[in-house]
Amino acid sequence: MKDGQESKERPVRMTSNKLSVQVAINSWGLIVERANKIFSNLTDDELLREVAPGRNRLIYLLGHLTAVHDAMFPILGLGERLHPELDAIFVSSPDKTGAQLPPVAELKKYWDEVNGKLLSQFATLSADEWLQRHYAMSEEDYAKDPGRNRLAVLLSRTNHMSYHLGQIALAVK
Amino acid sequence: MKDGQESKERPVRMTSNKLSVQVAINSWGLIVERANKIFSNLTDDELLREVAPGRNRLIYLLGHLTAVHDAMFPILGLGERLHPELDAIFVSSPDKTGAQLPPVAELKKYWDEVNGKLLSQFATLSADEWLQRHYAMSEEDYAKDPGRNRLAVLLSRTNHMSYHLGQIALAVK
Repeated sequence: MKDGQESKERPVRMTSNKLSVQVAINSWGLIVERANKIFSNLTDDELLREVAPGRNRLIYLLGHLTAVHDAMFPILGLGERLHPELDAIFVSSPDKTGAQLPPVAELKKYWDEVNGKLLSQFATLSADEWLQRHYAMSEEDYAKDPGRNRLAVLLSRTNHMSYHLGQIALAVK
Repeated sequence: MKDGQESKERPVRMTSNKLSVQVAINSWGLIVERANKIFSNLTDDELLREVAPGRNRLIYLLGHLTAVHDAMFPILGLGERLHPELDAIFVSSPDKTGAQLPPVAELKKYWDEVNGKLLSQFATLSADEWLQRHYAMSEEDYAKDPGRNRLAVLLSRTNHMSYHLGQIALAVK
């Protein structure tokens, strides 16, 4: 553990840097928990509701969020995706194209799998690694803007999840 | 500038800690900009639209977000609120209670004022100050959980804004 060794020399600074990252991971975890609570209580029929008339159905947003979270594995350098097949239905295409969706039970399982594995993988990255470039950008671009790092991806995806959670809440309250 | 002095001794770590905070502020700023773009393009009449049938109107969410952001000044120890009078209408009460709302032009002005001042105040806090307790909690609670700091408040309010922005988008696209 590089962090652990360095913390003997620089206890305050090291703790601060780790703490910043931990706060960001906590924020992600909190929104995932809120989404879990909502999705786990919805029946198959309820998942077919639209968030507003003519807009996305809850089942589409469940698949969409799962696909976008699954894509975080390669972007964060945390390995291969678990369900790349979801992109064609839930990212590249809008809702209600007539495409056959995976069964609800499968989608709920994927959602849990992807978020569970992400959270455990997050813990394997050191605070410094969170500030290294993400894999969707080149070394050159990172050199120009070191703010485009893994941590920025985490915050961006947390905001994305919050955005859709606000929509989802309209159909379940 | 405490940070500037320390960076000579600990260049890498200091940069890392500041960078984490900067990434969080950038994330906040990005969502504020998106909201700005939407709100500034809406007419007075359009602001009376509901995000979904029977739900909050856009004007209420504009006032709600302004009030919640305004409350960040004391919570983050950045001074007095600019518009505490907004809470009675936009936080303590739901929408459509028959309460007289401030004129749209005033609300839009408050929104810009509050967010503008917040962003400039954010820049006055050092990276370490972002990791100190926020003022809505006691020293005792902070000692139990140092993750409940200013940075956590910033991320929480960014998620809150994203949540409502997702709803707002349903009524403007």
